[in-house]
Amino acid sequence: MHTDLVAALDIGGTKIAGALVDCDGRILARAQRGTPAQQDGETVMGAVEEVLAELAGSPLWERAGALGIGSAGPVDASAGTVSPVNVPGWRDFPLVERVRAAVGGLPVELIGDGVAITAAEHWQGAARGHDNALCMVVSTGVGGGLVLNGRLHPGPTGNAGHIGHISVDLDGDPCPCGSRGCVERIASGPNIARRALEQGWRPGPDGDTSAAAVAAAAREGDPVAVASFERAAQALAAGIAATATLVEIDIAVIGGGVGKAGDILLTPLRKALTDYATLSFVQRLTVVPAQMGTDAGLVGAAAAALARRPDATAGV
Amino acid sequence: MHTDLVAALDIGGTKIAGALVDCDGRILARAQRGTPAQQDGETVMGAVEEVLAELAGSPLWERAGALGIGSAGPVDASAGTVSPVNVPGWRDFPLVERVRAAVGGLPVELIGDGVAITAAEHWQGAARGHDNALCMVVSTGVGGGLVLNGRLHPGPTGNAGHIGHISVDLDGDPCPCGSRGCVERIASGPNIARRALEQGWRPGPDGDTSAAAVAAAAREGDPVAVASFERAAQALAAGIAATATLVEIDIAVIGGGVGKAGDILLTPLRKALTDYATLSFVQRLTVVPAQMGTDAGLVGAAAAALARRPDATAGV
Repeated sequence: MHTDLVAALDIGGTKIAGALVDCDGRILARAQRGTPAQQDGETVMGAVEEVLAELAGSPLWERAGALGIGSAGPVDASAGTVSPVNVPGWRDFPLVERVRAAVGGLPVELIGDGVAITAAEHWQGAARGHDNALCMVVSTGVGGGLVLNGRLHPGPTGNAGHIGHISVDLDGDPCPCGSRGCVERIASGPNIARRALEQGWRPGPDGDTSAAAVAAAAREGDPVAVASFERAAQALAAGIAATATLVEIDIAVIGGGVGKAGDILLTPLRKALTDYATLSFVQRLTVVPAQMGTDAGLVGAAAAALARRPDATAGV
Repeated sequence: MHTDLVAALDIGGTKIAGALVDCDGRILARAQRGTPAQQDGETVMGAVEEVLAELAGSPLWERAGALGIGSAGPVDASAGTVSPVNVPGWRDFPLVERVRAAVGGLPVELIGDGVAITAAEHWQGAARGHDNALCMVVSTGVGGGLVLNGRLHPGPTGNAGHIGHISVDLDGDPCPCGSRGCVERIASGPNIARRALEQGWRPGPDGDTSAAAVAAAAREGDPVAVASFERAAQALAAGIAATATLVEIDIAVIGGGVGKAGDILLTPLRKALTDYATLSFVQRLTVVPAQMGTDAGLVGAAAAALARRPDATAGV
């Protein structure tokens, strides 16, 4: 049997997406269900199995030689389990074993969702051609992943690149993770909005207090809105500089909803990077917007599955 | 010709050490000169050439198949140049080319001194058998290096693992590197001593105001001395936790003069790590003292040279 495709799953707190993907990263078939995130673990697994059954109904299914999973974290790739923060019914849930059983024993590769996004940007997007890259999602949370020496670096448990939970302010505000002054605690969308509101910004008549509304106000010159994005940019810059100083990266790719704020975020971020990325070997670091859209998780999961095949052709 | 040995150079601001090292890390011949650090670049190179000439006088020399250099940084392994902060006569100095010429064209491998120490601890010391490790030198400065996926991770320019210059306090005190709140700015020996003095600690009759004297006072229960080590430990913990969160390491090895303070540093460091290393995949991280002595730089440079040979046997 000729297995020139892979299956991919992108599992988040809102939706479970599946696809069949070819060696060029094209999505040839799709299936999707909402995540029954507040229900018991078997019900969530049932939704995954429905997605897989729908994909298996495709005439292309028999060409799939492996399956990649990008899942909300934390994951444990070494144990094959997941414990997504927003899916309380799954704690150390044996997702790899269950998915492998559902797909008749295909090889299954599990990575965290930040790592999956990174695999996609490296294969098809803004990090293409870069051997050492950090890719980030700045959104409700702040996630990320690393490419080192030309290859994805998931780490032993598939969680490497968790830049949202490094502390850049060791005496700073407590973070829900238990630490203090984490990048996410300063730079995530909800924290950008919270800080703007605390410092006197008020929403328009529509009552929208999202980070996108703060970004709109910043574009119109509201100084409190501008300052909240500048503080987020400072924390992101300190985190990106730390990553570059530790592992040597030459590009940082910023995606996610907050990343869409564009220059409101990127201009102060690039300026702050010159404050924190000071050693000679990190000064050439560039920051660019992500290129992959909402399929990044699926494409990245596919890339991880392709990379593990003996005849791997994906550049990850 | 049977080339079962390598030559090694350890170049610092105080001394230039050379050795012939076998595949088990044993030092079979040595040479050393003081570093004429304040003289012009050619004079410094002259001292390196004297060390090499002395090694070449050994009957073992003809068995050396490669040469490794661990140098004070920054280095640029991709360009083959070094610019050690404490050797002003060397700026982008083409050390690899000059050394290669002096040794008749042997393959030459250049890494930073923190990376060299790490190679030594991974090969022969406290990080042996660990596939993902951070090794640190806490001394006049704070340096380090990384082992990832079972291999040394020098990065493209040989500088990866520079944990001393990641910011853990983004609004903190200016660091000589140009950034703020760097780990080194809080945790190095001189900063431990400075903070103790600023907060009222006074040296004994010998007038010794070194970090070692502060450590001795801390062991006798002096609360200001204890507090200064606790603050250093907190910054080191935040930096180690950041490293683990970014790349997944399971052990951190602490060497250097301040590392010798032992439990005065390690006990609060291990306690602080529980505050900052909070995500599930970093909670198993352990911190241990370094095992390699003053030959670590030479042994690590030798390991880097051995690792690049096609028939590499060193576990780095």
